[in-house]
Amino acid sequence: MAKLLYPTSLPLDVQSLEGFSVALHPYDVTVPIPDEHTDAEFLVTWANAAGNLKDAAQRLKKLRWIQSLAAGPNDVLNAGFDTSRIIVTTGSGLHDGPVAEHTLGLLLNAARRFNEMTEYQLRGKWPGHLGGSFPRSDFTTLRGSNVLIWGYGNIAKELTSFLVPLGAKVRGIARTAGVRNGVEVLSDDKLPEVLPETDALVMILPGHPSTNDALNAEKLKLLPKHAWVVNVGRGTSVDEDALADALEKGDIGGAALDVFKTEPLPESSRLWKTPNLIISPHAAGGRPEGCEELIAHNLRRILASQPLKNVIN
Amino acid sequence: MAKLLYPTSLPLDVQSLEGFSVALHPYDVTVPIPDEHTDAEFLVTWANAAGNLKDAAQRLKKLRWIQSLAAGPNDVLNAGFDTSRIIVTTGSGLHDGPVAEHTLGLLLNAARRFNEMTEYQLRGKWPGHLGGSFPRSDFTTLRGSNVLIWGYGNIAKELTSFLVPLGAKVRGIARTAGVRNGVEVLSDDKLPEVLPETDALVMILPGHPSTNDALNAEKLKLLPKHAWVVNVGRGTSVDEDALADALEKGDIGGAALDVFKTEPLPESSRLWKTPNLIISPHAAGGRPEGCEELIAHNLRRILASQPLKNVIN
Repeated sequence: MAKLLYPTSLPLDVQSLEGFSVALHPYDVTVPIPDEHTDAEFLVTWANAAGNLKDAAQRLKKLRWIQSLAAGPNDVLNAGFDTSRIIVTTGSGLHDGPVAEHTLGLLLNAARRFNEMTEYQLRGKWPGHLGGSFPRSDFTTLRGSNVLIWGYGNIAKELTSFLVPLGAKVRGIARTAGVRNGVEVLSDDKLPEVLPETDALVMILPGHPSTNDALNAEKLKLLPKHAWVVNVGRGTSVDEDALADALEKGDIGGAALDVFKTEPLPESSRLWKTPNLIISPHAAGGRPEGCEELIAHNLRRILASQPLKNVIN
Repeated sequence: MAKLLYPTSLPLDVQSLEGFSVALHPYDVTVPIPDEHTDAEFLVTWANAAGNLKDAAQRLKKLRWIQSLAAGPNDVLNAGFDTSRIIVTTGSGLHDGPVAEHTLGLLLNAARRFNEMTEYQLRGKWPGHLGGSFPRSDFTTLRGSNVLIWGYGNIAKELTSFLVPLGAKVRGIARTAGVRNGVEVLSDDKLPEVLPETDALVMILPGHPSTNDALNAEKLKLLPKHAWVVNVGRGTSVDEDALADALEKGDIGGAALDVFKTEPLPESSRLWKTPNLIISPHAAGGRPEGCEELIAHNLRRILASQPLKNVIN
């Protein structure tokens, strides 16, 4: 009977993987896989130590399929597995919901100034100024606000489904213009027209040389003074110094960043002291949802010699 | 031509009130109404000074209708207006959306620990422990979580419309059981059964002697160790000492309070130092939405001698 190894680095409902002619065994991702399990044909990975993967690439001679639960399993691809005979499938889609939920949380922190409430709370002070009517020109609610999502892919679609019931007016920017799920998506040459009408700019750009410093001083200047920037895509897509300058000068309302050029953010970074900035520690993802369904789906497919979902190679 | 006075204490789109045979005049809610406007028949109020209202009650002899934008206009009712001939209408409904949005923000702060991120940020420290997978037994996402709304009225309905797309499983508690907008609402004698299954308890109880200390030590004991409590109803409905005890002992996961028995929360309150508590300064409401539509609706109705909406007396 074929053997599947699943990681103990995240909670999995293993019962929901039963019913196949496969032996299921847990393994510790921080150490080499024990000798009795080197005959495994299937391997599920999550947050594995580099040494664990490198060792597995050498010792798991019967391996046929690796299901990574990460959206981009660079760790697996760089470990030396023979991908000419081993199928690698990604966790693409498992992170859309969690990242979109975190993004919504950051947007509500921006609108409702929960971070400022925490600052006051730590000093034992009541922030009464946050309790009344704000000037309507500020970004103080999602209702009626213009949210522009730069990088309109699957996370953006999920986020839109959260934002629309809250009354936000959502538009997207992507390489290809069109209407997706009822949302107007514009091509990026339209940014100079739409940035001035934006209350909250959400960035979900992929990592790619073409997106380096996509949000630069020139584009920041086009945003209204009350606008907030939220980045949950890649740290490389924001010119951090230009953003810090804009925040220090009060040229924009604020920013909430979950990703940075260097992570963890170095202690010497000026961003720690930049005003109206919310620092989130690359915490949007990291908690995949629907893992069991994806594993079970692909397990059934490989046992039936059918094409798998999320194949990378 | 009849005269309507509107307050400058909040931004109103006055253009959207034009088109009626009525003269529209702004007024300052912090001082007595000027002599030339004491002939007003219609008065809109928002955050008026007590002196302004008391004075208006004496001097506005032609007044026929007061539209308060507050949900409960006790200020107007206590100012001495002759309510035998003046119709008072409330801002009921204008605050449901804002309060529900704030509640969602508090729930996401609970799940995503944004307040802990702020604490770390203020110390220049990267809270890496918030970035990975949490134990699934914790309340770390709304997806799949059991949210119980105690006090299932209009705010709860609005909140439910936000929570369902996020994947939360919503149930309600109210005096009358039934299914409302597809949500199962149970009577409060069912609390001992449902509290142990609750990941987040949202309290939106009205102020009434029967709701005093509704959440007490006995009920807190029924919640799971990871459960969060969010109160956006009345401060009176939570036994604050019992809650602080539960938080200090780690009997529940945390609490986010927007309302307190005494507001502003006194500097001497033990709540400032209670762990896993988020203090929000009665900021859920205070920013009515749809004021112009309500004013225009009632203005047309009173000019047509038809019954008004939200009549209190």
